[in-house]
Amino acid sequence: MGNDFFGQIDPPQRLLMGPGPVNVHPRVLRAMAADMLGQFDPEMTAYMNETMALYRQVFMTDNRWTFLVDGTARAGIEAALVSLVEPGSKILIVRAGRFGLLLSEIAERIGAEICTLDLPWGEVASLEQIEEALRTHRPQVLACIHGDTSTTMAQPLDGVGALCRTYDVLSYVDATATLGGMPVKTDAWGIDVISAGLQKCMGGPPGSAPITISDRAAAHIMARRHVEAGIRSGDTDNGRGARIGSNYFDLAMIMEYWSERRLNHHTEATTMLYGAREAARVMLEEGLEARFARHKAGSTAMVAGLRALDLTVFGNDAHRMANVTGVWIPEGVDGEQVRQRMREDFGIEIGTAFGPLAGKIWRIGVMGYNARKQAVLQTLGALEACLAAEGYAARRGAGVDAALATCQHGLWQ
Amino acid sequence: MGNDFFGQIDPPQRLLMGPGPVNVHPRVLRAMAADMLGQFDPEMTAYMNETMALYRQVFMTDNRWTFLVDGTARAGIEAALVSLVEPGSKILIVRAGRFGLLLSEIAERIGAEICTLDLPWGEVASLEQIEEALRTHRPQVLACIHGDTSTTMAQPLDGVGALCRTYDVLSYVDATATLGGMPVKTDAWGIDVISAGLQKCMGGPPGSAPITISDRAAAHIMARRHVEAGIRSGDTDNGRGARIGSNYFDLAMIMEYWSERRLNHHTEATTMLYGAREAARVMLEEGLEARFARHKAGSTAMVAGLRALDLTVFGNDAHRMANVTGVWIPEGVDGEQVRQRMREDFGIEIGTAFGPLAGKIWRIGVMGYNARKQAVLQTLGALEACLAAEGYAARRGAGVDAALATCQHGLWQ
Repeated sequence: MGNDFFGQIDPPQRLLMGPGPVNVHPRVLRAMAADMLGQFDPEMTAYMNETMALYRQVFMTDNRWTFLVDGTARAGIEAALVSLVEPGSKILIVRAGRFGLLLSEIAERIGAEICTLDLPWGEVASLEQIEEALRTHRPQVLACIHGDTSTTMAQPLDGVGALCRTYDVLSYVDATATLGGMPVKTDAWGIDVISAGLQKCMGGPPGSAPITISDRAAAHIMARRHVEAGIRSGDTDNGRGARIGSNYFDLAMIMEYWSERRLNHHTEATTMLYGAREAARVMLEEGLEARFARHKAGSTAMVAGLRALDLTVFGNDAHRMANVTGVWIPEGVDGEQVRQRMREDFGIEIGTAFGPLAGKIWRIGVMGYNARKQAVLQTLGALEACLAAEGYAARRGAGVDAALATCQHGLWQ
Repeated sequence: MGNDFFGQIDPPQRLLMGPGPVNVHPRVLRAMAADMLGQFDPEMTAYMNETMALYRQVFMTDNRWTFLVDGTARAGIEAALVSLVEPGSKILIVRAGRFGLLLSEIAERIGAEICTLDLPWGEVASLEQIEEALRTHRPQVLACIHGDTSTTMAQPLDGVGALCRTYDVLSYVDATATLGGMPVKTDAWGIDVISAGLQKCMGGPPGSAPITISDRAAAHIMARRHVEAGIRSGDTDNGRGARIGSNYFDLAMIMEYWSERRLNHHTEATTMLYGAREAARVMLEEGLEARFARHKAGSTAMVAGLRALDLTVFGNDAHRMANVTGVWIPEGVDGEQVRQRMREDFGIEIGTAFGPLAGKIWRIGVMGYNARKQAVLQTLGALEACLAAEGYAARRGAGVDAALATCQHGLWQ
């Protein structure tokens, strides 16, 4: 092993146009370079409170309980499910891609009774299908993915919260891949708990999971709370619900930490909090509508460019995410060879795929800081050249021209 | 709510001399300012492999499985326990402070049968006590805290691993507060799993939990593995042990992600990995022995200074941690008033305490980047002034002089 310290961190310049992580907004990286504060210093708790206020705007909600879970996006999913779903209770999961499967994976480990609404990868559930499944299964919790990057489809959620309230069901949505890039209308949709990550459309690094929780979900979770023996002041602190199966992901305890009580739980990941806070500030200064329009324009340009290269875009236009596009790898082309050329000759990353779509489609992200005209045009130009090098007869220049033309049509600012 | 974006991150300058987080080494913050890489880019996986090699040196081990859990130190603890301890199996926990209680808190939620070796806060267990408890309870796993900052005591661990192997017990140690400041001799002690954090003696920010796992513990954990349906290639991937109760903390899956198979699990927290890697580089360039000596010299100076101010240091000298010192708040002095003066007049944080020691002792850290002569002297000078302002008749200048004198005796470089 020896005394090998390796070189200092010095990553090559990459344009990350895969499904995430993508390049981080430079302001976020700069904010993360600030030094620590004590975890209960008034300046630190003020930053925590400001972060809550900022993410209320990001999640389009008035939910008091809007904060960060310290871990990657998947940590937010697990915190939501383990805190909402009691062992033995029923959860209904909409599964139409890898991340729907992940939800049932996590719920199985919690010991929930799992019912599913299964769809082929690439489809979304209709409100009627969801209602029928709710009526059939009568779950305690409904869980689904907003944008599943494995299929590039966005599940419509308008009306889902109202349905759940009709059937007295708590609702959970994973918006990791959409938050910051498509509207995530927590309150308008009436979804109880939504969690996300920073590394996609939020323009931050992976490692922090913003979450928002409705009052009724918070009441359900707080009924399951148990205060740690080391800091407990009396037995009256404990709720009567089934104890949450994880300490680290116990949202009742994390809420206490983010509340004015400031009951110590973990030590907040200061640097990630700085980054999450700055990512939200960048987003809100741009304006939600402008930001969603920028993402939409970016993928409109990308789709136009891909089609002009005679490539076939994956899935139904009506439900495609505004920030990641699947595209079929043409017959006779080795998808991994193209990705390698993109990376090595142009320093651009596009994504591979999972499960039934592995080796069949590429996934191209237009997310966060990279939802820019320049990034889209560079990617299309590089893709054309790499396809040509692999023997695919693309019309040279057609992708870039078509993408540029969408800008002239006013779709791009 | 309105369009309030708040100001940019701009924390006041603080000298953090509490039990952590402490100030981060500037090189670590600079490393964290680098932009993202794709998670399976060769440059990224090379950084992951280098991080493994660096932390093997930090943990003084040859363990292949030495990597990062994406979360704060507490995430490392939970990942270790949920992966090692099967529901219904017996765990023996040494409890002599808040973090010992945390271990049983977590184990309870796993559904383990819990046996404890309980000691008054401030004491440590002898090898004989541990052996007797192992013989009495015959647990599957023994768990304890190396340095419990709630009491400032360090549990001696020499011989504990050998004892555990005699009784066929897997051992887990939380070294959050000691890694980087005191020797953590994974292999020499024969401990199976050790986890830690960055925010204390490692000189990094909270949010990443280094962990090391012996081959025999890895075999035990891998027997419990289940591959996610979304990325599974065949049912033969699954082990026969009781499935691990968490997806995020499933060390079997995290090992697959850090292995050459690179099976996708979470998206590695790139920025935190950059920071963890740089913190280890800073440590190894300094040299383990030099770094431990620096911490020891720092707390020797601090203890000398505190005693010269006629303050009483908490606990038994023989077992005190080399990096955090408890000191009794003198009769008639309001501990919180002193802490507030320290913070407001000098920009220096010292720590409060938990549980039975709350309001009785302060905890003063000499950790990582702050284990410096300058930081110790500044703290003692400020403490003296704040004590005097609260009416405590300290001999002015005595603390600083006594601390300086330890340097002249060669204890400080």
